[in-house]
Amino acid sequence: MKNAKLRLETCLSPAMYSKHANDDNIVVVVDILRATSTICTALHNGVKRIIPVSTVEEAKAKKDEGYIVASERDGYVLDFADFGNSPFNFTADKVKDKEIVYSTTNGTRCIHMAAHSKAVVVGSFLNLTALANWLIGQDSPVLIFCASWKDRFSLEDTVFAGALAEKLLASGKFETICDAVTASLDLWSLASPDLNGYIQKAAQKGRLAAKGLDDCIEFCHQPDFTSVIPVFADGDLVPVS
Amino acid sequence: MKNAKLRLETCLSPAMYSKHANDDNIVVVVDILRATSTICTALHNGVKRIIPVSTVEEAKAKKDEGYIVASERDGYVLDFADFGNSPFNFTADKVKDKEIVYSTTNGTRCIHMAAHSKAVVVGSFLNLTALANWLIGQDSPVLIFCASWKDRFSLEDTVFAGALAEKLLASGKFETICDAVTASLDLWSLASPDLNGYIQKAAQKGRLAAKGLDDCIEFCHQPDFTSVIPVFADGDLVPVS
Repeated sequence: MKNAKLRLETCLSPAMYSKHANDDNIVVVVDILRATSTICTALHNGVKRIIPVSTVEEAKAKKDEGYIVASERDGYVLDFADFGNSPFNFTADKVKDKEIVYSTTNGTRCIHMAAHSKAVVVGSFLNLTALANWLIGQDSPVLIFCASWKDRFSLEDTVFAGALAEKLLASGKFETICDAVTASLDLWSLASPDLNGYIQKAAQKGRLAAKGLDDCIEFCHQPDFTSVIPVFADGDLVPVS
Repeated sequence: MKNAKLRLETCLSPAMYSKHANDDNIVVVVDILRATSTICTALHNGVKRIIPVSTVEEAKAKKDEGYIVASERDGYVLDFADFGNSPFNFTADKVKDKEIVYSTTNGTRCIHMAAHSKAVVVGSFLNLTALANWLIGQDSPVLIFCASWKDRFSLEDTVFAGALAEKLLASGKFETICDAVTASLDLWSLASPDLNGYIQKAAQKGRLAAKGLDDCIEFCHQPDFTSVIPVFADGDLVPVS
């Protein structure tokens, strides 16, 4: 007898998370521009652990404890922070073997919302294939959770969800009856021949460009820059062991 | 000087509505399978007004007052109701010049959620072109509001949102920086060459088929069956005057 296939769903916004929540899920949090791309880059460059925080107050308190703090609000580096939230700030010479506090709104919130799940990992184009292969080996249902922007819908997160879903379904171990997965696969099919061209029409591209923060967009859409898989454990993000 | 263009947004689920709500909006409520297709069909066939209700208790109370009541829960006709929620039930011989109580969960809820707006109208493929032309004449921002299914994401509602957005943007009077509009246009571009073929993969198709209620799916995706535009006024749905 064949084993039953594993459930695959995609949640397009934190506003819809409660409809997808399940303790059995492995949840992949996705915030392509820029939180989850930055977290993957930081761990790739040797950061020992990332402490995700939601509020400016938490970030400031951690700074006072002596941590290196990356923190922006609305695209502007906070005055007490060591640097901002771009993946380009997390170079090996600055961050190797360090513990870093990373302040995000959406990304941190989604990680904490999903903390009841079997596991919470961080996904981006940068670790796409390694992440897909790891998920295929876990024998658990998967929820791809798009952090999006202010509870709306985000094009780049959804396109990534399609890229990941394609790999998971191709393994034959997963199945889906989730329209969000279906739509993400179709959007990925349109985007994949020229991903950087396609993503130019994403609203977040315009928001970052208006603040001069769009230099990392091409980098954030580069598949398989790293094989690191950040996992949420005891309040921190560390490479999966 | 050119006039500023009008805002066009799409809300993919009631769970995200608060992020899009604006008193200035004309809101187009969309529930292709089946509420808004049925409402358009009913008014086309001469129903004088539709009284949308949310709960079984409200529907039963209206039945006791002598109204004709269309009411289902989970695809099964309630025992006190005159008929179910399929558009095929609303034939002219049964409904012409009548006042009908129509019980839906998602559709009614969305209409009431949006009642603060400048106007709330009902959209479906059945009244696509008439609705688009009417909206183009109104000089107001438009929010396309997908009723979806249980606060998730719905493929058929989103594809319709793309079809309507295409017409509105082609008029030159609207502009958008909403990723949900962008995604809906792309999904519509994939679906439109064979809409009935494409929609076979929608989850709601499977849910209706499991209850033998999928006979109306092709009808519900037929563009421009009618030029009626249902508008919400004083608690009822009536043809726009």
